[in-house]
Amino acid sequence: MIRKPRLFTPGPTPLHPAVLEAMARPILHHRTDEFRSIFKECIVGLKSFLKTQDDVLVLACSGTGGMEAALANVLSPGDRMVALVAGNFGERWAGIGKAYGMEVQILKAAWGDAVPPEEVARALDADPAIKGVFVQFSESSTGARHDIEALARITRERPGTLLVVDAISGAGAMALETKAWGVDVVVVGSQKSLALPPGLAFLSVSARAWERIESGKAPRFYFDLRRERKAQAGGESAFTPAISNMVALRAALEVVKGMGGVDSLVKNAGTLAACTRAAAGALGLALVAPRAYGDALTALHPPPGVDSGAIVKALKSEFGSTVAGGQGELKGKILRVAHLGYYDTTDILGLLSSLEIVLHRLGHEFDFGAGMAAAERAYFERIPEAPPAKVSA
Amino acid sequence: MIRKPRLFTPGPTPLHPAVLEAMARPILHHRTDEFRSIFKECIVGLKSFLKTQDDVLVLACSGTGGMEAALANVLSPGDRMVALVAGNFGERWAGIGKAYGMEVQILKAAWGDAVPPEEVARALDADPAIKGVFVQFSESSTGARHDIEALARITRERPGTLLVVDAISGAGAMALETKAWGVDVVVVGSQKSLALPPGLAFLSVSARAWERIESGKAPRFYFDLRRERKAQAGGESAFTPAISNMVALRAALEVVKGMGGVDSLVKNAGTLAACTRAAAGALGLALVAPRAYGDALTALHPPPGVDSGAIVKALKSEFGSTVAGGQGELKGKILRVAHLGYYDTTDILGLLSSLEIVLHRLGHEFDFGAGMAAAERAYFERIPEAPPAKVSA
Repeated sequence: MIRKPRLFTPGPTPLHPAVLEAMARPILHHRTDEFRSIFKECIVGLKSFLKTQDDVLVLACSGTGGMEAALANVLSPGDRMVALVAGNFGERWAGIGKAYGMEVQILKAAWGDAVPPEEVARALDADPAIKGVFVQFSESSTGARHDIEALARITRERPGTLLVVDAISGAGAMALETKAWGVDVVVVGSQKSLALPPGLAFLSVSARAWERIESGKAPRFYFDLRRERKAQAGGESAFTPAISNMVALRAALEVVKGMGGVDSLVKNAGTLAACTRAAAGALGLALVAPRAYGDALTALHPPPGVDSGAIVKALKSEFGSTVAGGQGELKGKILRVAHLGYYDTTDILGLLSSLEIVLHRLGHEFDFGAGMAAAERAYFERIPEAPPAKVSA
Repeated sequence: MIRKPRLFTPGPTPLHPAVLEAMARPILHHRTDEFRSIFKECIVGLKSFLKTQDDVLVLACSGTGGMEAALANVLSPGDRMVALVAGNFGERWAGIGKAYGMEVQILKAAWGDAVPPEEVARALDADPAIKGVFVQFSESSTGARHDIEALARITRERPGTLLVVDAISGAGAMALETKAWGVDVVVVGSQKSLALPPGLAFLSVSARAWERIESGKAPRFYFDLRRERKAQAGGESAFTPAISNMVALRAALEVVKGMGGVDSLVKNAGTLAACTRAAAGALGLALVAPRAYGDALTALHPPPGVDSGAIVKALKSEFGSTVAGGQGELKGKILRVAHLGYYDTTDILGLLSSLEIVLHRLGHEFDFGAGMAAAERAYFERIPEAPPAKVSA
């Protein structure tokens, strides 16, 4: 039997064919007009992707490198910061802050929940010296989302407090109006919605963040955004760029443009997420984030009496599909299915039907096709009219 | 929304990633030891794929070229031949025979049926001078299969009558024991079960076919199998081979070997076909070949009151999936879904669920998920036990 290897993990996500093709091209030299032109096209595309006219910088590193770059540039040692911790990745903001000598105040929510914006407002009222609020847009360990628009409403009225958003897995999966909402720094990773391999991080930086960056006192060299801003204005990076990844980035951004922009990508992830939640409900798999669920991925508890690890293993061994298990305190307890990136409806419908087969194998009782019926109904709710005939992406 | 372009056509079929990778490699020269070694590996793999120790030759042409090569070598002008015609491709055998000046006797079956072996036996009894029986293993225009084992039982007892099988889309999708059954010539195309691009045809040739070929009088140059046999014994082809396609062929044959051989490929297609027939039955789509159905593809009538062309169009425009329409007298009347090639269960489950969505859009009434429930049950009938954990292909 054929079992195609399929990644349904919230990063890495499947590479778009245009990306594969671009990555396979002969290498260019980066100190050339040809490459500078590619670099500049990427910046234009990223601004459109992030809906901002602020600077967007590209770094050759993983998403965590992008998070570190953001924090180490906008804060100085001893600064007070608030980290919203509602899962594994929230803890990362706190960890980076501590590593750089910040005074970290943690606002916690249970895993699966989100920290309410009002709680952040209260913390900032209580301590006006807080220099930055650090938060995940999509908390990949639980599938929960933070309300970035509401948080930005709070921080943008406070001149001394920046909002720094890890949108590594959230951007391109859920609506994000970087400039209109007034988010100061957004961090994105390449191996998520943009269907690229890991290796690039993207940062948008607001004018007031730049003021802070210019006077920052934390140690930084590779991640010195001042240096990058200067170089990248001319289509170069301060240090050697990940050349093939940049060529592929341009291809990926062309794909997004071709399908009607980031809104179309967001609608796609939202539709797949809705189908998945509906099927899960019909099959008796509870959401890990029943109130705060986002669309970048769906985290699910197994049905009572079924081991989540057995589901993950069986999807892989019988169908070749890799879904993610739990992390941190949810390790071995849940499964996570990605929607961000290069997935289409047929992908998720196939996965959900194979999930029915696996659940039956594992002794779970339900009517065959019940999850599929729910998923198809959810699809019609999201897409009531057949789309125009043009096939894209 | 993302709509991945997916081919569910009975050729070309999706290319295997190992094939894509091989096709992207720099070109080799064909008059080198390196290429000769690749060529010889391909022949070994093809013999295993076709289950024969007879000669297997590779030609740089499409499947039709392989059919012409077979006929023009084993018959001489004026020879009597029988063509089994049960669809579009059966007519091709008759057409090639006429083009080469043969006396063609047509044994017809209604489209969707197969010609019964007893009818062939009667024809051969009536005219012992018939030199060859030409037949499709899988008739791609209707999804019907001919009973090659039974036909070979008839021809192998008749020294003057060869059995020449167009297994272009049948090999690798349904069990074919070339040597054990005693099939004289089998023709296969690359863009089918082997998940390669079009451009190669493969012919197995029995000892008694070689006798005929040696003394044949039909004009032949590019397709002269005597010349090819001599060259290919040394790992070369008489004329320039399709070099990259051959490198990819080796990769494809390695994939088949790695998944446990052609039987595993056949089981795969058989499972997907069973799921498709079950779903179609539950959704009210009648089989075009209700008695003679094969596993290489499934041809379906639309439900009453629904236009098949509208289904084909909607699957493409809403989901990016291309299924085939009808050919010849069934043009505009049916849809055809391929199972041969690089498809897995998740592919077909995804397609069937998207078919439910499309049928609902077109006004067909049924219970959501009914087709999926039937498909999942059919899967369990075929694969009652979970397979071992090793993920292949």
